[in-house]
Amino acid sequence: MLHFRFSGKEEKRKRKDAKVLKQLEKQRKKEEETKEQLRQESERKEKGRPYTVSIALPGSVMDNAQSPELRTYLAGQIARASAVFSVDEVVIFDEQGEESKTVEGEFKGVGKKGQACVQLARILQYLECPQYLRKSFFPKHQDLQFAGLLNPLDSPHHMRVDEETEFREGVVLDRPSKPGKGSFVNCGMRKEVQIDKLLRCLGLLFPRFYKGVVVAPHVPRTEGGLYWGYSVRLASCLSNVFAECPHKEGYDLTIGTSERGSNIDLVTLSPFKRLLIVFGGLQGLEASVDFDQNLDITDPSVLFDHYINTCPNQGSRTIRTEEAIMISLAGLRPKISAAFSSMKVE
Amino acid sequence: MLHFRFSGKEEKRKRKDAKVLKQLEKQRKKEEETKEQLRQESERKEKGRPYTVSIALPGSVMDNAQSPELRTYLAGQIARASAVFSVDEVVIFDEQGEESKTVEGEFKGVGKKGQACVQLARILQYLECPQYLRKSFFPKHQDLQFAGLLNPLDSPHHMRVDEETEFREGVVLDRPSKPGKGSFVNCGMRKEVQIDKLLRCLGLLFPRFYKGVVVAPHVPRTEGGLYWGYSVRLASCLSNVFAECPHKEGYDLTIGTSERGSNIDLVTLSPFKRLLIVFGGLQGLEASVDFDQNLDITDPSVLFDHYINTCPNQGSRTIRTEEAIMISLAGLRPKISAAFSSMKVE
Ligand SMILES: C[S@@+](CC[C@H](N)C(=O)[O-])C[C@H]1O[C@@H](n2cnc3c(N)ncnc32)[C@H](O)[C@@H]1O
Ligand SMILES: C[S@@+](CC[C@H](N)C(=O)[O-])C[C@H]1O[C@@H](n2cnc3c(N)ncnc32)[C@H](O)[C@@H]1O
Repeated sequence: MLHFRFSGKEEKRKRKDAKVLKQLEKQRKKEEETKEQLRQESERKEKGRPYTVSIALPGSVMDNAQSPELRTYLAGQIARASAVFSVDEVVIFDEQGEESKTVEGEFKGVGKKGQACVQLARILQYLECPQYLRKSFFPKHQDLQFAGLLNPLDSPHHMRVDEETEFREGVVLDRPSKPGKGSFVNCGMRKEVQIDKLLRCLGLLFPRFYKGVVVAPHVPRTEGGLYWGYSVRLASCLSNVFAECPHKEGYDLTIGTSERGSNIDLVTLSPFKRLLIVFGGLQGLEASVDFDQNLDITDPSVLFDHYINTCPNQGSRTIRTEEAIMISLAGLRPKISAAFSSMKVE
Repeated sequence: MLHFRFSGKEEKRKRKDAKVLKQLEKQRKKEEETKEQLRQESERKEKGRPYTVSIALPGSVMDNAQSPELRTYLAGQIARASAVFSVDEVVIFDEQGEESKTVEGEFKGVGKKGQACVQLARILQYLECPQYLRKSFFPKHQDLQFAGLLNPLDSPHHMRVDEETEFREGVVLDRPSKPGKGSFVNCGMRKEVQIDKLLRCLGLLFPRFYKGVVVAPHVPRTEGGLYWGYSVRLASCLSNVFAECPHKEGYDLTIGTSERGSNIDLVTLSPFKRLLIVFGGLQGLEASVDFDQNLDITDPSVLFDHYINTCPNQGSRTIRTEEAIMISLAGLRPKISAAFSSMKVE
């Protein structure tokens, strides 16, 4: 009986087969990857949130707090309400003539007592910043003396160190890198991340770990439907909340809030791109209008598309601004989502 | 020419006429009074609120505060939310085995640290009590050390001294009065009020000033539609929130709250007499169920008619209980009012 070993040929064939298989597998993998990419992309577009929500309030609310601890806590309440309801921008306006020069976006001066607007802005920004970036962006400051008492925002862009995630925020490190090789970024992971560009504060897209692609800050919201924290803006008076809107087209839907507004239950919102919701201080929006030298009106309601009582039949004679923010955002949430779900039906 | 003076006769007639007129006027006045009474009564019945809202939460929430000041403030936030949304009863249940004997309604013991339930109850009661009665009901107590930092409830039953009002709350004064003449009451007005009975803490009906008629505490709500503050109750575990309901028939509509509940936007409430809304602590209602020896379940949702996520798409990983109370009451308010407005339509 003969025994043939076809090992050589067989091996060759096997090797060839393996190569083909490998190629096929590679191809399949690539196809799958493309499919997955397309799927993710379309999902992202579906998930994406096409609009932004801004709130505005006078910095004077800080002066209603009864101690420095509670002043800090009050700012924290506003930050928490903003995070819980995915607010994209918080505008703090002056309604009592603080030193107007230091209020124009200058956050680095010494925060004296009484500088309510700047102090509120600083605490809001501090809380919004992912913990791993705070050292870089918030040097010791007396406004942040009680920051240890603040409840964290715990929003999705505050990543934990080992969290797998598509986006991360980072700060470029002051560390030499070879020319043309981009720079190193601290994204709150165990290792630094190398990116393709030189930037300061940014959003990072993470298709694979440890290689970063820089994306615009709105991408997590518009493509991922993720809440990516809020920006903070200072305005020297109520009218500048509108006039200095960072978006070219301005706010296309505006809401003023007051117990003298119309019943929220009777309000329907139409779809929008940029919603602005404005709150008053201790004396209501009337006082903000009074202080504003650009405004020749006395009735605040004429400034807005809607002027709304968000808490009909309130069981307390007055609702504080920080409470009104939480209550109003809770009351408007279903109205906002209805505005966009009706769009989908069309 | 004779001149007759009919003075005598005339005077007599005049006097008679005057008497008749007076009687007529008296009669008319009485009729008007009766009409006005009937009008007020029917108006009151229309204005009246036929239902109550209770909330329940674990006292353990107090232990999430980072300082004694903030612990007090946290209790104040819960009191404020209750007042703003006209909550009639706040039930505080134990979920961690505090000294169970002192929790059974005993508010007068020394408030040690860690006695979260009793401490929360005390601060809630203190805030609910009209200012002019506090001296009588709240002797100095270390739990109330930071009470000066609390925001007042400013609910309608906290009358100002000269406010004209149909109802007032009062405390019977320890002052002798003639037998059969009732007793004197401090109602926070310039003078004491004399009432017909001897009672301790009560509601007072004021058809005219300074003469009081004692009414049951529910009358301002059921007849006047007024919010009349909340009562506070302690329960030694979650199940006793239900079992020890002060109303014979118990709660006829119950809601549990959780981020794992169903979307509030899809919920419709049916009319009810006694609504109970229950909140969990740091670890959610799962932990409250776990601790409860009367409950043989692990899924809290089976305890309730509805188990609701009152903040779909929350932008923070967790919502704190005090925030969830404000948000949930704001979200449920239109659902509650819809339940009763649909009743009127029928
Ligand atoms: C302390 S309140 C202002 C009270 C002031 N006395 C007034 O009559 O307007 C502060 C702010 O909270 C908001 N607010 C209070 N109650 C509200 C309600 N029922 N509906 C909507 N916003 C309310 C408004 O933005 C208001 O300017
Ligand atoms: C800190 S949260 C509990 C978080 C806990 N890890 C859990 O998963 O349930 C405390 C309480 O707030 C309320 N809560 C928080 N988020 C909520 C939501 N989205 N809807 C309704 N209630 C919520 C619930 O009563 C919850 O028990």
